[in-house]
Amino acid sequence: MNEAQLVTRVRELFSPRIADDAAVVDGQALTTDMLIEDVDFTRATPLRFVARKALAVNLSDLAAMGASPAYALIAIGLPEWAYANVDELLTSFASAAKEHAIEIVGGDFSRADKLTIAITAIGRVTRPLLRSGAKPGDRIYLSRPVGGAGAGLALIGRDLSAQSFVVREFASSAIARHLDPEPEVALGLALAKIDQVTACIDVSDGFSTDLHHLCDASHCGAEIERERIPLFPDLITHGAALGIPVRDVVMNGGEEFALLFTSSLRESEMSVRVGRPVYSIGRITSARDVVIKGQGPLEPRGFDHFRMPDRS
Amino acid sequence: MNEAQLVTRVRELFSPRIADDAAVVDGQALTTDMLIEDVDFTRATPLRFVARKALAVNLSDLAAMGASPAYALIAIGLPEWAYANVDELLTSFASAAKEHAIEIVGGDFSRADKLTIAITAIGRVTRPLLRSGAKPGDRIYLSRPVGGAGAGLALIGRDLSAQSFVVREFASSAIARHLDPEPEVALGLALAKIDQVTACIDVSDGFSTDLHHLCDASHCGAEIERERIPLFPDLITHGAALGIPVRDVVMNGGEEFALLFTSSLRESEMSVRVGRPVYSIGRITSARDVVIKGQGPLEPRGFDHFRMPDRS
Repeated sequence: MNEAQLVTRVRELFSPRIADDAAVVDGQALTTDMLIEDVDFTRATPLRFVARKALAVNLSDLAAMGASPAYALIAIGLPEWAYANVDELLTSFASAAKEHAIEIVGGDFSRADKLTIAITAIGRVTRPLLRSGAKPGDRIYLSRPVGGAGAGLALIGRDLSAQSFVVREFASSAIARHLDPEPEVALGLALAKIDQVTACIDVSDGFSTDLHHLCDASHCGAEIERERIPLFPDLITHGAALGIPVRDVVMNGGEEFALLFTSSLRESEMSVRVGRPVYSIGRITSARDVVIKGQGPLEPRGFDHFRMPDRS
Repeated sequence: MNEAQLVTRVRELFSPRIADDAAVVDGQALTTDMLIEDVDFTRATPLRFVARKALAVNLSDLAAMGASPAYALIAIGLPEWAYANVDELLTSFASAAKEHAIEIVGGDFSRADKLTIAITAIGRVTRPLLRSGAKPGDRIYLSRPVGGAGAGLALIGRDLSAQSFVVREFASSAIARHLDPEPEVALGLALAKIDQVTACIDVSDGFSTDLHHLCDASHCGAEIERERIPLFPDLITHGAALGIPVRDVVMNGGEEFALLFTSSLRESEMSVRVGRPVYSIGRITSARDVVIKGQGPLEPRGFDHFRMPDRS
């Protein structure tokens, strides 16, 4: 069993609506995500980052749908070690919610062995961005440089005291990207207003896997120009020196929360329309393969909670 | 810290809307509940019951609001022991959802050490039933006999082979009430259509605690006639013989999922209006105390996830 097989079964059993980053019903986008201690974070992770990321993961799903955040519900499984710090956790939820103008309207507390946070976010959506609308010839876009979150995950907890100042600066900005990701809410809303934007997904599992998700949903393929993928600043320089597998964190690193979207518009026009740089990195193809131009197939090797041992 | 203190803090930080069994926004009732292995169930609990109860807990919250079930999202933290049985879990969700006409539109899978299920349910609501509308003089109603769920919890896993047939029959019906509770969805919808129904809550934490919740929200008190509380069949006869603390399971047993509501209507008229028996058990008072007539105060001794040792 892997996650894709699970999701396929869920669609069969529950609803064909389960196809995008969020479900769209009655003009609303609905999404839920669960974060668990020792899977998604550790006790060493400051609770304010746990709270912010738990909300950010859901906000990123709304962003990918082009939805405007409205309401959230937060269920918390609370272990004893966190009792003394529960106010830090709640205060962080409150401030992160305020920052993104989403109202926390309900919740649930339970005892738990591991800190567990399940958030459901509800957004309002007029023209939902789906995974399924990409057309052959569309340009493929990344909203921002990637690789930082994966590099940060690799660097967290490492002793970098022997490194130079610039390397430590690089490391702390990568770790910040991993710990405190910024969901692309404003961009998602802007993309939803542009009719030529045909499909969208957020890079949560990893670029390779999420590109496959988008292509599968759109019944098409993709040809990526490797050198056009925007990279987290100094990733090549410092990442390699620090022993980070740069290609892997760029192609497969999860929790980037960049948006990956498609449009017939040229890069210059798209950037003007959304008021900021976005990066055209390849084209949608009618052939069903996902390839790196001149290099061959790009396999989906992003994060899978239930990957079989032979693929790990 | 106890659960009530946590909820008070949550209201301060997040939203005053957090006051009822579900939040009401835009004509919708929104609720979330998390169930965790070894807190709410064990590995010995058949997964179909885990799935049904996880959904029932949320449906009961919608019932208490007088909301019509519409959509659900299910986040699942899945431990290795459950991998082989995940299809049983998903199939059970699907059939329980079908039974209650709620569509599962989204979800999330994560690895976990303990099976963890967080469901968010969304219902449509025209006149929401709040906890806060009870008025002095209103009759207090229970929708059905209570004590069965608490008795079932006390009996589960007990060796009853030496008991008589009727005692074993009693035990299995009590255990069924605990394992597979029936949310009062149809009754909640009927109550919402009766203007004279002033307040409602579901008995999830325990009758004593939930009555306090309702009275606190309504700024009033209650006088209960102990002998009018409808009891799970044969609870007095067999429960006492089996060593079950009958008064405690009736007054404080959680997860009954009966509705506790208030109305100026007499019992006979109320039962006619909803088309089934419901039980008038006392009156709302302007004095803020919650008392058992002739016996004195009824303390809130229901379930509290975070109860301090001195109260346990």
